[in-house]
Amino acid sequence: MKKHNFSAGPSILSDYAINNTIDAIRDFDGTGISLLSISHRSKEFQAVIDEAGALVKELLSVPEGYSVLWLGGGASMQFAMIPYNFMRSRAGYLDTGTWAHNAIKEARLFGQVDVLASSEAAGYTYYPQLGQDYTIPEGLDYMHITTNNTIYGTELRDDLDAPCPLIADMSSDIFTRYVDVARYDAIYAGAQKNLAPAGVTLVIVKDEALGRAERPIPTMLDYRTHVKKGSMFNTPPVLPIYTALQTLRYYKQIGGIKELMSRAALKSAKLYEAIDNSAMFEGTARETDRSLMNVTFVMAPPFKNLEKDFIDFCAGRGIVGIKGHRSVGGFRASLYNALPMESVDALVEAMSDFESTHR
Amino acid sequence: MKKHNFSAGPSILSDYAINNTIDAIRDFDGTGISLLSISHRSKEFQAVIDEAGALVKELLSVPEGYSVLWLGGGASMQFAMIPYNFMRSRAGYLDTGTWAHNAIKEARLFGQVDVLASSEAAGYTYYPQLGQDYTIPEGLDYMHITTNNTIYGTELRDDLDAPCPLIADMSSDIFTRYVDVARYDAIYAGAQKNLAPAGVTLVIVKDEALGRAERPIPTMLDYRTHVKKGSMFNTPPVLPIYTALQTLRYYKQIGGIKELMSRAALKSAKLYEAIDNSAMFEGTARETDRSLMNVTFVMAPPFKNLEKDFIDFCAGRGIVGIKGHRSVGGFRASLYNALPMESVDALVEAMSDFESTHR
Repeated sequence: MKKHNFSAGPSILSDYAINNTIDAIRDFDGTGISLLSISHRSKEFQAVIDEAGALVKELLSVPEGYSVLWLGGGASMQFAMIPYNFMRSRAGYLDTGTWAHNAIKEARLFGQVDVLASSEAAGYTYYPQLGQDYTIPEGLDYMHITTNNTIYGTELRDDLDAPCPLIADMSSDIFTRYVDVARYDAIYAGAQKNLAPAGVTLVIVKDEALGRAERPIPTMLDYRTHVKKGSMFNTPPVLPIYTALQTLRYYKQIGGIKELMSRAALKSAKLYEAIDNSAMFEGTARETDRSLMNVTFVMAPPFKNLEKDFIDFCAGRGIVGIKGHRSVGGFRASLYNALPMESVDALVEAMSDFESTHR
Repeated sequence: MKKHNFSAGPSILSDYAINNTIDAIRDFDGTGISLLSISHRSKEFQAVIDEAGALVKELLSVPEGYSVLWLGGGASMQFAMIPYNFMRSRAGYLDTGTWAHNAIKEARLFGQVDVLASSEAAGYTYYPQLGQDYTIPEGLDYMHITTNNTIYGTELRDDLDAPCPLIADMSSDIFTRYVDVARYDAIYAGAQKNLAPAGVTLVIVKDEALGRAERPIPTMLDYRTHVKKGSMFNTPPVLPIYTALQTLRYYKQIGGIKELMSRAALKSAKLYEAIDNSAMFEGTARETDRSLMNVTFVMAPPFKNLEKDFIDFCAGRGIVGIKGHRSVGGFRASLYNALPMESVDALVEAMSDFESTHR
């Protein structure tokens, strides 16, 4: 049975990316050597990492003066690398969910962290709004945001107008909207949502913003190391970067960010509409802050005891990965770029059929 | 044409590991989901990481009280993580090659580094011998060694008798000999030589040795984080770990360390014999310290100008990856576990044929 994979990450990738990866494991670019065994110093792999970086810049209209890096360790490693490299004395953070919270914890090892706003007391069900919930003081080295809160289903889809450089964790929503990169000193994204299998993190960094913090930085944690060596200071995660290139090529072929934005809007609108029109299901995030990537919902109180039944009902139709994170409960349907509309249709139909049966 | 892949890393993997990885990318363990898309929180992947850890312990006879970790970032990240976690005031390092040198550089950020011996002045052509070239003072927090110097073709195949815990970078020779793990506080190995594709680092760490350094440690750089969460604090590199499991299963099937030792001895003996019996080629490392994994050799002075010709001659026979590192020149043939004897035979024959033609 074909599976509808709503997993929050690692998550669904396009057939194009998967099939090309398999082909390259059999024989990478006509070398007679597997992608799993190819030297990262080979000219064929150099071409891969060069094209992947160029496509990131093209798709996101990255201005001159920025470098694209491919690093191991995951976005959680970036939580420490960001303050290691950018914190001189004081930075602002928004506390909008579990990962934002973790980023704040790491930053506190390096300097003063101003938590400008937090939605923790409300169970992270909304995204604090600039002007309304908080202001940004002068004198911050940077302001850190988590643009999409994967666990709580909230998202900030606009680039903030801040008096300091922004730094953003875009792990879950990169390549789903236009970004005004010039406002950011750094953007990072664990690739296992909209780009590649687990094992590589994309970082876009402003070259001239590096080197301002005066602390000694271990070589591997210093972005300058990786900028200088084109992400090849040491052996990079070869296969995840290759698959990322396939995804980026696919994105370009189908029409780039414009098309990806449109698909994300259509898919999420359909699912949210089904939730809002149902008497059995209800969304958990404030409507104005709803994520287009991670749709979080629960059973309305009279039906609460049916949550497990619904997950089993879905599994019977090949719908998997919809169990909510343990800190929220209920359901989370992740609608990453590679998820087709037919999977959303299957979930909406399952919700409707289940509701008809159980009311 | 079938290639004989002598690449120093990423390097040849067994057909068993490669084919099983392809199968899992098509459908991981009957889930209907690709290995590239499977959630690391799925019970099927939990089984993978559990079995991989258990097989490491079984194959290397790891005693109780040690944890097996699978981390991103490469061995170069370990150069910083080791002193971050283990250096209280003073550690000893052996300077035996480029990677050892890099490890020393990182350790100096965290405390006093005693370089107990260095073969740098001799172009790292030998491995300093305990008792003869150096002694180990009392009072070290640990002593760090690089058991195999990939670039220079030297290796230490015995576990040192030291008055302090050992810590070893075994990136290039893990799973090629028995190791008395009890002598070590930590052993680490970038997996892209004898285990998996690039993107994961194996760490074996002594649990009770952790937490002694009193500095604050960023969460991702603290081994306790990964011990506590079974390498699942954040999303681990799923595919490289899966391929590592296949390699470990394969090692067990063929007879474990005993068989791997035997094969390494036979393969390297045959190639060194060909070098020593040749008037055209000569080895670069001191004979007693020669690596069983990376065989470094050059053309003897009268033939120096033929080095490039020989590389081309080999390429014509499908022999690839034998160009020496730029700091040594000449040739480096890496004989990792997955390289079959027939590839060594092909190289030896090529050397003989080339020599006959050009003398």
